[in-house]
Amino acid sequence: MNVHPDRLLGSEPAVRELARGLYREVADAPIISPHGHVSARMLAEDEPFSDPAALLVTPDHYVTRLLHSSGVPLEALGVGAAGHPPPPSGAAAPRAVWRTLCENWKLFAGTPVRYWLQDTLERVFGCELTPAAATADELYDQLAERLAQPESSPRALLERFGVEVLATTDDPADELEAHARLAAEGFGVRVIPTFRADAYMTPDRAGWAARLGTLGQVAGIDCGSYRGLLDALRARREHFRARGATATDTGVQDAWATPLTDREAEAIHRRALAGEVSAQEALAYRRNLLFQLGLMAADDGLVMQLHAGVLRNHHRPTLARFGPDTGHDIPVATEFARPLRELLNVVGTSPGFRIVLFTTDEAACSREIAPLAGFYPSVYIGAPWWFLDAPSAVRRFRAAVTETAGFYKTSGFVDDTRALCSIPSRHDMIRRLDARYLAELVADHQLSVQEAHTLALALVDEIPRTAFRL
Amino acid sequence: MNVHPDRLLGSEPAVRELARGLYREVADAPIISPHGHVSARMLAEDEPFSDPAALLVTPDHYVTRLLHSSGVPLEALGVGAAGHPPPPSGAAAPRAVWRTLCENWKLFAGTPVRYWLQDTLERVFGCELTPAAATADELYDQLAERLAQPESSPRALLERFGVEVLATTDDPADELEAHARLAAEGFGVRVIPTFRADAYMTPDRAGWAARLGTLGQVAGIDCGSYRGLLDALRARREHFRARGATATDTGVQDAWATPLTDREAEAIHRRALAGEVSAQEALAYRRNLLFQLGLMAADDGLVMQLHAGVLRNHHRPTLARFGPDTGHDIPVATEFARPLRELLNVVGTSPGFRIVLFTTDEAACSREIAPLAGFYPSVYIGAPWWFLDAPSAVRRFRAAVTETAGFYKTSGFVDDTRALCSIPSRHDMIRRLDARYLAELVADHQLSVQEAHTLALALVDEIPRTAFRL
Amino acid sequence: MNVHPDRLLGSEPAVRELARGLYREVADAPIISPHGHVSARMLAEDEPFSDPAALLVTPDHYVTRLLHSSGVPLEALGVGAAGHPPPPSGAAAPRAVWRTLCENWKLFAGTPVRYWLQDTLERVFGCELTPAAATADELYDQLAERLAQPESSPRALLERFGVEVLATTDDPADELEAHARLAAEGFGVRVIPTFRADAYMTPDRAGWAARLGTLGQVAGIDCGSYRGLLDALRARREHFRARGATATDTGVQDAWATPLTDREAEAIHRRALAGEVSAQEALAYRRNLLFQLGLMAADDGLVMQLHAGVLRNHHRPTLARFGPDTGHDIPVATEFARPLRELLNVVGTSPGFRIVLFTTDEAACSREIAPLAGFYPSVYIGAPWWFLDAPSAVRRFRAAVTETAGFYKTSGFVDDTRALCSIPSRHDMIRRLDARYLAELVADHQLSVQEAHTLALALVDEIPRTAFRL
Repeated sequence: MNVHPDRLLGSEPAVRELARGLYREVADAPIISPHGHVSARMLAEDEPFSDPAALLVTPDHYVTRLLHSSGVPLEALGVGAAGHPPPPSGAAAPRAVWRTLCENWKLFAGTPVRYWLQDTLERVFGCELTPAAATADELYDQLAERLAQPESSPRALLERFGVEVLATTDDPADELEAHARLAAEGFGVRVIPTFRADAYMTPDRAGWAARLGTLGQVAGIDCGSYRGLLDALRARREHFRARGATATDTGVQDAWATPLTDREAEAIHRRALAGEVSAQEALAYRRNLLFQLGLMAADDGLVMQLHAGVLRNHHRPTLARFGPDTGHDIPVATEFARPLRELLNVVGTSPGFRIVLFTTDEAACSREIAPLAGFYPSVYIGAPWWFLDAPSAVRRFRAAVTETAGFYKTSGFVDDTRALCSIPSRHDMIRRLDARYLAELVADHQLSVQEAHTLALALVDEIPRTAFRL
Repeated sequence: MNVHPDRLLGSEPAVRELARGLYREVADAPIISPHGHVSARMLAEDEPFSDPAALLVTPDHYVTRLLHSSGVPLEALGVGAAGHPPPPSGAAAPRAVWRTLCENWKLFAGTPVRYWLQDTLERVFGCELTPAAATADELYDQLAERLAQPESSPRALLERFGVEVLATTDDPADELEAHARLAAEGFGVRVIPTFRADAYMTPDRAGWAARLGTLGQVAGIDCGSYRGLLDALRARREHFRARGATATDTGVQDAWATPLTDREAEAIHRRALAGEVSAQEALAYRRNLLFQLGLMAADDGLVMQLHAGVLRNHHRPTLARFGPDTGHDIPVATEFARPLRELLNVVGTSPGFRIVLFTTDEAACSREIAPLAGFYPSVYIGAPWWFLDAPSAVRRFRAAVTETAGFYKTSGFVDDTRALCSIPSRHDMIRRLDARYLAELVADHQLSVQEAHTLALALVDEIPRTAFRL
Repeated sequence: MNVHPDRLLGSEPAVRELARGLYREVADAPIISPHGHVSARMLAEDEPFSDPAALLVTPDHYVTRLLHSSGVPLEALGVGAAGHPPPPSGAAAPRAVWRTLCENWKLFAGTPVRYWLQDTLERVFGCELTPAAATADELYDQLAERLAQPESSPRALLERFGVEVLATTDDPADELEAHARLAAEGFGVRVIPTFRADAYMTPDRAGWAARLGTLGQVAGIDCGSYRGLLDALRARREHFRARGATATDTGVQDAWATPLTDREAEAIHRRALAGEVSAQEALAYRRNLLFQLGLMAADDGLVMQLHAGVLRNHHRPTLARFGPDTGHDIPVATEFARPLRELLNVVGTSPGFRIVLFTTDEAACSREIAPLAGFYPSVYIGAPWWFLDAPSAVRRFRAAVTETAGFYKTSGFVDDTRALCSIPSRHDMIRRLDARYLAELVADHQLSVQEAHTLALALVDEIPRTAFRL
């Protein structure tokens, strides 16, 4: 067996013993997943997964990037040309893809990707073999057989995982029919949409005008003007709220939310539609829209998630060939205190406003995010995100924010994943790590055992429900 | 009992045993407090504290900001409109304020604020109840009774705490009569002033000209010119030195110390008096004054403390209503190597010059502060400051600086507090954490036990005395 | 005895036991030193070291900077005026220098410098006395006696240390005769050069034109034009490759590699030769050359080392008097993702290209370097460098990068030292720390014992050989 019952609970006996007790308390608690990238359509259709590679390798850029970094071409992992799945033959046939993963298993040592995969194999599919060249085919066959069974369909998996709420991430123009169908069919998991308007915030990106056209049609509001776009976004937020949404999301390279006058914004909007917008104008336009989204959030009460500080698609040739989300989004230094000051001065103490801040620049946690959350009632500390969603980084995160802002201004765990099978492994990992963190505080006489138990439960229940208004 | 004798000494038995021994050595050593915000006038007057809320809640922005961050309005905590204490009635009556704290006790779990408060209740006032809704009134009554007793007066407390030296923070225009009175009355604690000229460095802030007028009067030197201001500052530094000061302090958003020519500085000074200074000129003026203060320090030997990298009063509506120091000063990314280069090139190896660098941007500790202190005889590493004055952050601090600069270029602990009762708790916390850090080095065979004992003692005695020329 | 067999292996018994086993596996493995500053000429000449101070104090700016930071003048440590060794008399006589070190031994407590020195004294020279005022003379005499023996000659030491490969750092104009002689004489250590062209990249530094003249003569290619300089650098890279080089090195204050057109670069080159280059042009020129070196590396396969983010020679008076490398190079905030994007977009997936990124800004490790290495096959994570080459910093480094990029995209250890005797101590320190890091993963059930053993061996063998193409 690869998966030890005491994994991640610490090696110091006193801490481990305490951590075990705390972990037991929350090990089987329902999973609240308030932000992620599972497809609602996939759940609505509920087709079985075709093969192990298509489930666990090809679509997971956490897996493919590490293989790529050691010289495996993305096409050999089944990653298709942008927008087009590759023919499942030759080097990229599912079994070959799977074998490539197993043969390169050592590359994943010490990474959370390995931890999640191992956990998935063993606890989700009951496969106890360690991936290796010698076991690749047997494992593939075992998995393929499991995937063909009814309890491995997308919906069946989520129910087995004990997921209570699952938030998807959706375009404002999405009619959310899949969500409606899941609700209508009485699916046991509450699947709610999340409003993500990024595509409308970058007037210098190809296709912006066309996207505005579509949004305008869906909303029944002409987006030919800046005011029209704001109205359409407001209308779509209402639609999302009606479908159960409690939150929005925005991903930006920097967190600046800087208002323009309506006149300035209209002028840029017009120039952008005419294809004449400059990079500087586009930036100002995006920063203004972030500010406007903040005002809307204060009005309608949708919780605003802000994922800031990532340079997307660092390697343009890979973007051109394989599309986005292929493993080369790279963090950059990020600040929050100055960029969000104007917004927080306007709505930072408004009862309707709530913003959850995520960063991949660790330095910002203790320096800016926790201090902001330690004053503004509206600011919450987002869970460790992306590269930081791993055992040591999670422990650094708790150490960095707790002393400044306590536990109750954190968001609870956010898995943020498109790898459906990793959901229980990710939540389980965090429950273990939080149990250990609390155990260390108890062992150090900073918390009583009883308080630690209360906190362990709150971290998987009250805290995320509060932060995300669930 | 909430306060365990082994708290913070580590959970690994071998480390804890060593840490206990090291801690015992320094647990009762006199407290040297070379930088803080206790009021000398309060000590001179020595009035008893009116009630528990006025002592432990209302004036302590560490406490109020966390309650505020969970939705408690500042006025409900007794925080008054800027410059005006609120009427102690209704929601803000002392007992109600205290009850709000107790009812929200869970918000403080994992924070040093809770640690200090708990420690204060138990070790200063002998109250062993855990704050909670159910215990709020009993605790309030117990505390109120203790506060009425002579041993709870400000002076009596400091003497009970074993404080040997206490530095206050004072405006250059202050005549320091309270300090003189304390000395004349033979108060058992050496209370010394610290020269903080921030108010004269920002010519674009309201009231600058008026403050210059007052300073000029007190100094007997006309501050209508830049040269006059420099002369007045020099004269007041001498006055402070005569009253026992050994140090100055400056708080700035960035650490740039960049000289102007006299001609440039005079021109900005004139424009500022005429109310015509630009933000850019004001910044240049402030950065030049920081440089000039450095030159003065090299001349008169007052140790220069530099607290850099905080964006003060982030939320303007709260500033307008409640004044500064109300919990929303937020750190920003900070550098030291480039900003201080000109100053250090001039006085960095001068025997008279000494500068202690404080940061709330942790990244600067290992990257810039320790390397600077590891070369320049004049540069000392300031103790963990503000949000970083907490168990995990303190441990990160020692780990970040020791390997580059050893122990003898650190400043010793600085409590930097206006919460009088937290002084012994804060010093005790650091003594425990330093004992643990040293114990870990011994357990790892990097230090001998004997060396660790020598260092533990030096950290509370020789090291701060040297850094602050006490 | 000062040097404990279990030093750095952790104090938690379960971890220590595992770490011991892992360390034993690699304790005596050959040393691969792919980057450092030992002089090839010193090895070719193989003269005995003159005295303990000249070996262990004077030339080691890690040692001298800490003494200087506590008030010891550099001249009292034997550091000579720039380019001129001081007369060994008076305060700077070797015995006096040595005594100064011993008397100030406490300043080094908690630093790796002390660890390395102690280790060197005991394990290289068999001296078990602890340095102190009382032992200084006896230690000096013991060391002096050992140094006079044949087994203490430079070559004999390297062979005793078990060094298999040692890379030096060399100017492109160097004919590498010392390397040729060592090879011809069958020295048991493979001593290979490293191509470092920094001196040709800064057209605004004094002597640039003269250096170009020399390089042009050596290469037989006129460097009066930018094209000529590129051709000469290419030719010299071939010469280095013929002498066994597998890598180049570049040290820069920032990592920007930004191409100019040939026309732009030629224009700056001409202006620089005419002494008319601006600081801005010189910067653009340097950043372009970094880009060009990247293209050359993709062509000829020399591994590109990039040491970025240090402000060299912070204290100009010390530079003027004592020359560079005298202890006041100070790190600054550093980024990699944006600066290297253009270069990586061109050669980041080229099979010939390999770049190893070193930083002294820890924040960049988890934020940028590990994510880049976790995608680009060409990018490797450089070992902890300079101030970060110490127990706690090394542990932070592994924690910061492993979860994102695993072990196989790290470079293996790089000692980067000019202190010959510290080489085995430094490698031993890292082997211990890596054993401990792996042991912690095993104790936490993230790795099996067998995997940890495989990794421990790979980290001192396969991994550096791969990263540096040895």
